[in-house]
Amino acid sequence: MRTTVERRDVGPRDVLIEIRYAGICHSDIHTVRGEWGPIAYPQTVGHEIVGAVTEVGAEVTRHAVGDRVGVGCMVNSCRDCANCQAGQEQYCLAGNTGTYTAVDRDGTITQGGYSTHIVVDQDFVLRVPESIPYEQAAPLLCAGITTYSPLSHWKAGPGTNVAVVGLGGLGHMAVKIAAAMGAEVTVLSQTLGKKEDGLAFGAKHYYATGDPATFEKLANTFDLIINTVSAPVDMGAYLSLLRLDGTLVAVGAPPEALPVQVFSLFGNRRSFAGSSIGGIAETQEMLDFCAEHGIASEVEVIDGDAVNEAYERVLKSDVRFRFVIDIDSIR
Amino acid sequence: MRTTVERRDVGPRDVLIEIRYAGICHSDIHTVRGEWGPIAYPQTVGHEIVGAVTEVGAEVTRHAVGDRVGVGCMVNSCRDCANCQAGQEQYCLAGNTGTYTAVDRDGTITQGGYSTHIVVDQDFVLRVPESIPYEQAAPLLCAGITTYSPLSHWKAGPGTNVAVVGLGGLGHMAVKIAAAMGAEVTVLSQTLGKKEDGLAFGAKHYYATGDPATFEKLANTFDLIINTVSAPVDMGAYLSLLRLDGTLVAVGAPPEALPVQVFSLFGNRRSFAGSSIGGIAETQEMLDFCAEHGIASEVEVIDGDAVNEAYERVLKSDVRFRFVIDIDSIR
Repeated sequence: MRTTVERRDVGPRDVLIEIRYAGICHSDIHTVRGEWGPIAYPQTVGHEIVGAVTEVGAEVTRHAVGDRVGVGCMVNSCRDCANCQAGQEQYCLAGNTGTYTAVDRDGTITQGGYSTHIVVDQDFVLRVPESIPYEQAAPLLCAGITTYSPLSHWKAGPGTNVAVVGLGGLGHMAVKIAAAMGAEVTVLSQTLGKKEDGLAFGAKHYYATGDPATFEKLANTFDLIINTVSAPVDMGAYLSLLRLDGTLVAVGAPPEALPVQVFSLFGNRRSFAGSSIGGIAETQEMLDFCAEHGIASEVEVIDGDAVNEAYERVLKSDVRFRFVIDIDSIR
Repeated sequence: MRTTVERRDVGPRDVLIEIRYAGICHSDIHTVRGEWGPIAYPQTVGHEIVGAVTEVGAEVTRHAVGDRVGVGCMVNSCRDCANCQAGQEQYCLAGNTGTYTAVDRDGTITQGGYSTHIVVDQDFVLRVPESIPYEQAAPLLCAGITTYSPLSHWKAGPGTNVAVVGLGGLGHMAVKIAAAMGAEVTVLSQTLGKKEDGLAFGAKHYYATGDPATFEKLANTFDLIINTVSAPVDMGAYLSLLRLDGTLVAVGAPPEALPVQVFSLFGNRRSFAGSSIGGIAETQEMLDFCAEHGIASEVEVIDGDAVNEAYERVLKSDVRFRFVIDIDSIR
């Protein structure tokens, strides 16, 4: 279904982007299905957006017409609170402005990126390096930064042992980025079905979580576990895999609370943490890091007409590894 | 009730201690009441032990007859695993040997410290500084190190905002130690009943958790929360008090799992961690730190006959702030 959404006029600090590709994130599905609450229409969702700048406001200095750019999960923040001042706009204490279904600072509702154009404040527009094809860059704006940020914050690198739970859109980026950072990477996936892919992305080891022997064998092993699965998991089992001072970081969240035995945190002084996308400067750092290391997202490009079918396949984990909509197909 | 327990002969690396005082920890109560499983008898429990060395084995170099010493929650570990090698014997991967109800490396069951004497390997015996009276030193061996270790690990100090939940045996030590480290300390207690005490121990602020306004007022405030309460708490409410990169550390644990909403960890990139006592070198560091800063435990000294009554009062939180048994009363 196509609809027309109005974008605001290009303000003095705004950038008009002609969108070329938009990635499909699981959050889009939660949102359009009303699982995260009622939404205002019209709405296109989509927060993995890449394209070319076609117009800039009078005060725009960071971007020029013709630039290859991207927009991720947020398009504004208060810029004033301690977290914004620290360059962590994603944790804006007034709430960052999401790229869809949020109320922007001008009172309008943000409408997402499965769309031909978008107008965004220059400070929330990223530069997409020349060496990364548009379609492979799109998922970096959410899946890339969501995994890069905790890997960087918790210091994945040479000498560290990192596990990635789930090898979907987020998981495959976590593997590539952690490996590029120099960590020893293990994939923990329900089955061994994607083992060859995981090893090709840079993982050294690949285990099936459906096999209870996995948890015995890997006890006290990891400095960092990035859990990309939003379904509930057995927290005690996963926490037991952390070595001294290890941290399990959730980047996806089930709607229900997870039962955590405090005793399972005592051993090895373990931590259970959450991480949400990344700051704007860090997102640019991630894009440049991916270009430098020759990594990007693995994508299946689809036409706009195939979105509903793609959603069904995402829900069945039947995607290698991210759907990206060719926006020319809806232009 | 008195009974006779046999201690092993003093081996070449052992120290015989004539116990002077033994603190009462909540763990003792859980243990004697069978709440942590069946136990072997005879058993005296108690892991906050201080006294004087009266005999040393031939190879003992760290302690001499007459020394003022202490023994805490563990009396041995494998010494071989990565954690022991890192000086974190409390997280021994083979399991450290608890001071009571554990199987020691020689196959005997450890029997605790509500007792006239104990024999302990020299490496697990601490030096008690001259300036700290015996009875006030005893609780440092568990309550002191259990709070010092996370405060030190998570870097409480000038410029950090630390909350202590609960002002009992552990909580009052957490307040004194965090304040001595230079942190700005807030006590979160069910009521304001112990407010004067808390401020006297070095807290700057004191709030009642029974008042919902507390959680609104203190949202996004703390770098570190030390939760000393072993009853279940509303995790979402406490996590909301953490500022960017803040950590809530549990040092007590309810037997039931705590429901944690992953979404409550996303904001401010929060962590929920556990911490268990401290290493031997760190325990010595804590004792020396307390001596240097003129701090120790607040105690009520009781005779051995009063232990059962004291247990009842501990369960009602009716103690300021730690019971310590005068072992001369049972000699």
